[in-house]
Amino acid sequence: MRRSIATVCLSGTLDDKLTAAAAAGFDGIELFENDLVVSPTAPAEVRKRCDDLGLSIDLYQPFRDLDSTDDGLFRRSLERAERKFDVMAALGVDTVLVCSSVAPAAADDDDLIAAQLTELAGRAQARGMRIAYEALAWGRHVSTWDRSWRIVRRAGHPALGLCLDSFHVLSREVSPAGIAEITPGKIFFLQLADAPHLSMDVLQWSRHHRLFPGQGAFDLPAFVRLVLSAGYDGPLSLEVFNDVFRQSDPARTAVDAMRSLIGLEDALAVRHLPGAPELAGHAFTEFAVDGNSGPELRSALRGLGFTHTGQHRTKPVELWEQGTARIVLNSAVTRPGPAAISAFAVTSTDPGRSVTRAGALLAPAHPNVREPGETELAAITAPDGTSVFVTPPGDGWRADFLPTGVPAGPGAGLLTVDHLGLAQPFDHFDEAGLFYHSVLGLDHLATEEYAAPFGLMRSRAVANTSRTVRVALTVALLRRGEWAPAVADPQHVAFTTDDIVATAAALTLPPLPVPDNYYDDLIARFALDADLVATLARHGILYDRDPSGHELLHLYTPVYGGRVFFEIVERRPGYDRFGEPDAPVRMAAQRHRRLNP
Amino acid sequence: MRRSIATVCLSGTLDDKLTAAAAAGFDGIELFENDLVVSPTAPAEVRKRCDDLGLSIDLYQPFRDLDSTDDGLFRRSLERAERKFDVMAALGVDTVLVCSSVAPAAADDDDLIAAQLTELAGRAQARGMRIAYEALAWGRHVSTWDRSWRIVRRAGHPALGLCLDSFHVLSREVSPAGIAEITPGKIFFLQLADAPHLSMDVLQWSRHHRLFPGQGAFDLPAFVRLVLSAGYDGPLSLEVFNDVFRQSDPARTAVDAMRSLIGLEDALAVRHLPGAPELAGHAFTEFAVDGNSGPELRSALRGLGFTHTGQHRTKPVELWEQGTARIVLNSAVTRPGPAAISAFAVTSTDPGRSVTRAGALLAPAHPNVREPGETELAAITAPDGTSVFVTPPGDGWRADFLPTGVPAGPGAGLLTVDHLGLAQPFDHFDEAGLFYHSVLGLDHLATEEYAAPFGLMRSRAVANTSRTVRVALTVALLRRGEWAPAVADPQHVAFTTDDIVATAAALTLPPLPVPDNYYDDLIARFALDADLVATLARHGILYDRDPSGHELLHLYTPVYGGRVFFEIVERRPGYDRFGEPDAPVRMAAQRHRRLNP
Repeated sequence: MRRSIATVCLSGTLDDKLTAAAAAGFDGIELFENDLVVSPTAPAEVRKRCDDLGLSIDLYQPFRDLDSTDDGLFRRSLERAERKFDVMAALGVDTVLVCSSVAPAAADDDDLIAAQLTELAGRAQARGMRIAYEALAWGRHVSTWDRSWRIVRRAGHPALGLCLDSFHVLSREVSPAGIAEITPGKIFFLQLADAPHLSMDVLQWSRHHRLFPGQGAFDLPAFVRLVLSAGYDGPLSLEVFNDVFRQSDPARTAVDAMRSLIGLEDALAVRHLPGAPELAGHAFTEFAVDGNSGPELRSALRGLGFTHTGQHRTKPVELWEQGTARIVLNSAVTRPGPAAISAFAVTSTDPGRSVTRAGALLAPAHPNVREPGETELAAITAPDGTSVFVTPPGDGWRADFLPTGVPAGPGAGLLTVDHLGLAQPFDHFDEAGLFYHSVLGLDHLATEEYAAPFGLMRSRAVANTSRTVRVALTVALLRRGEWAPAVADPQHVAFTTDDIVATAAALTLPPLPVPDNYYDDLIARFALDADLVATLARHGILYDRDPSGHELLHLYTPVYGGRVFFEIVERRPGYDRFGEPDAPVRMAAQRHRRLNP
Repeated sequence: MRRSIATVCLSGTLDDKLTAAAAAGFDGIELFENDLVVSPTAPAEVRKRCDDLGLSIDLYQPFRDLDSTDDGLFRRSLERAERKFDVMAALGVDTVLVCSSVAPAAADDDDLIAAQLTELAGRAQARGMRIAYEALAWGRHVSTWDRSWRIVRRAGHPALGLCLDSFHVLSREVSPAGIAEITPGKIFFLQLADAPHLSMDVLQWSRHHRLFPGQGAFDLPAFVRLVLSAGYDGPLSLEVFNDVFRQSDPARTAVDAMRSLIGLEDALAVRHLPGAPELAGHAFTEFAVDGNSGPELRSALRGLGFTHTGQHRTKPVELWEQGTARIVLNSAVTRPGPAAISAFAVTSTDPGRSVTRAGALLAPAHPNVREPGETELAAITAPDGTSVFVTPPGDGWRADFLPTGVPAGPGAGLLTVDHLGLAQPFDHFDEAGLFYHSVLGLDHLATEEYAAPFGLMRSRAVANTSRTVRVALTVALLRRGEWAPAVADPQHVAFTTDDIVATAAALTLPPLPVPDNYYDDLIARFALDADLVATLARHGILYDRDPSGHELLHLYTPVYGGRVFFEIVERRPGYDRFGEPDAPVRMAAQRHRRLNP
């Protein structure tokens, strides 16, 4: 199917948008009127520019407030439409979106609206054009798809059809099931947007919080199947109003948008992507360190019971191990700075297929120019710049490391990696969620929001079904300004233990101090046994319990190397979260420690 | 009256918040439980810290979900309350806020709720404490102030009273009028928050969009008068959940908060501020320029028909004039950078009173160390750092300038300053609105939001009654990131003309080019006469019409000196806006020009 994107999805000037849409591989665009109005490029030149870029102009939009109980106003609107037909002719676009009226004088009479649309459609037809009529979810009288279809059917004009927009349909309670029964050929255009479930005014919800398919809560595949059942064969076109995308690099957003469409096509089985292979677990996590952060991280790893077991054959790269948790310290960094998770590796049952799938989803693997395992592993770049390696089962990647011969220490009972915590760049949080979901096949877990000492946070985790691969993504709800004395974009690795008290006792690095006030509150909140709480307090262990009573015991370390910390978790059976209620305690404690080193 | 602030209003750790509240002059705080829980400071030490800072702890909050149809849960809550009473005892606070339950098992029976509150109040009383019961606007069953008062009255316990929160009361449709009839002594606590009118879920509205009194749309003075009529003599306490304040410098926010309370007290006549004197107009606008931006601005002023009429006696400061529009170019800048509006002067009928009022509102005037008029003028610093001079009637400030003797040019028909346009720092937009309103006595005009090429914008203008002083404040809805190729925080001066076509013809600088597409759309949108539109197009003049038919004709210049531009406006009678619909055209054109110089 052809793929289009409305210019309103992207930031910048019209030329910025066209360039971005073409570069991401879109076949066409919906031209949002305001983007043309503010552009110095004449319509005929826009057409030529689109031709040069290989883009069709599939829709001109929107034309507002046509129908009216005031005939004079309606006549005025017809004149207005003629001016827009002139523009469309110069643009070479034959379909205009006419949305249901929100004006005080909007008609509430299907016959009148049908008659007025028929008159407009006649004028359009005379110019070789056609009208796609759409029910805005907040239309004054016409606000549901079924009413818009009743009106279009009543009009019965060949140049009048429907525009269906998934947001307008799915944000309302009217069932979309009947869409499959729409007369073939009468759906002129299909606009797609996802959205989170929000309890707010539908206009504000629509104008600020739409998302690309797969990023929200709507069942887009089911919706599109209904439309396809009605014989629709036009483009799948994205129309997403989103505050963040409106101000983000349009080239990035366009790729994110295209990835969402490819994923949707795959779900619809109109395109076949290689399925995401099952992932087995975290193979290793690589930190980039420099002369300052390296010693700090080594000391922290030792304190956590890790042993430096391997040294890269040729490069300044160390392997540290405990249980099946592996940390790689890479000192071959080109510019000094805080420590960072530069890469992580997950084990795939079929790395070749993982890589092929990633490439099909516009996340091409690039040759691994960094250690370890440079001979075998291809890296996929995540939206935050982290390299994701996909390794085959087994530890082949370890062949590049020579054993240090250092005997493994007693360890602290750490078993494996539970999850990675990656604070995301503000502009790319939803992009990251979609990336991990579509490219690696990880599922979205619940999104949580909480108040932290320096502002509100949003967290969304992705994980495989067996929960052996988990990544917790976080972002500030507002991009941070100068007053943000917390660590910017912190990253962490959480390790599992099956006895956190024993592990805590075995650590030789002090955990992050947890306030006594926290434990007093714990007793009140959860009615915990005082002895248990005393034990937790002695070791700086935090406690969370989900509404079903499943428990998490966990502890954090201070921040090392300027940006990273570690967490140790004992997940009691059934607990599937990340201890989010404790994150503010951690942030306050990390802040306190920085001010009182 | 005593003034308090809830710690949740401010960003940072508990110590950051206490320090900020004390520095801004608050008498007390409401301690938000989570701020204590994440703090390493024990309750007794918090009390001591507050004592040292001169702060009382007026309320401990919130205690949630007390009442229940499940007696076991209720008993558990009583135990939980006892633990909190322990904390309160150590803090030395005697009142706890108990909010209406949102739990599934919340009671819906006034008798049961009254009985459970009575039992809690008895326990509180035994410890010398008391319960302030508050109806959350989204409480499961108790969500209005009148029901909470019925329950408290029914309970009839001396240690049980009401907490009234202006948001919870005014966000609901139940009239607050009956508050004046509440039994004296039964309102234990008063929380104040303003808010904009928003059509959204009340919980989200409350948790993200509250504002300080005077920043929103609620009639706080009327509300507080009702509470005072009921004999309330406790503190006026702010409880504002706001996404921006939650992440802004708490010292700044606390001052903003205190200014809002002082303004409220003035409106209530419980404190007497010197009234804001009537302002007569803009006296002059000063630009800081350096060796690069100075020549650009001089050339632009010449092109606009200004004449360099005066030179400061001792400093590198020039006076440029046309009509009664005066621009001062100050080259005595200490660090190079883009040109900026460093100061502006407004004429006051009583500058001394303006300055006294500003000082009482925590915006103390400081001696003017910059030209012009250093002998006479005191400067008040606006939230964005701009100095606001308040000059007496007449042009006494010009005494420091020696006439250049340069004969005035023919000019371009500019009469005076219409308004200043000041893009505000993201964290200080609402603070700026309150500053201009309370300190200078300017009224808020409507707030507008619009989509601009690089993201959504919000604009709010302030003006005096006679509209001789206007300042248009703008901000991006999301703090800008790297992809923001527009000018950051642009500033501009708009001049009036009574014949913009003649003025445009007389300009010797080219106005900002306006796309033909804009004019084509203008004809369609407003059914304007084609000849008129051709004239507008010839001169780059834009056109706006408000819903009542009042008209604005205006034009923009390109950006000079890296940050500033000029506007020329012909306001037809009755037009009271700022041509906001044309701002995206300007931004796109300024962007286009920068890419195609």
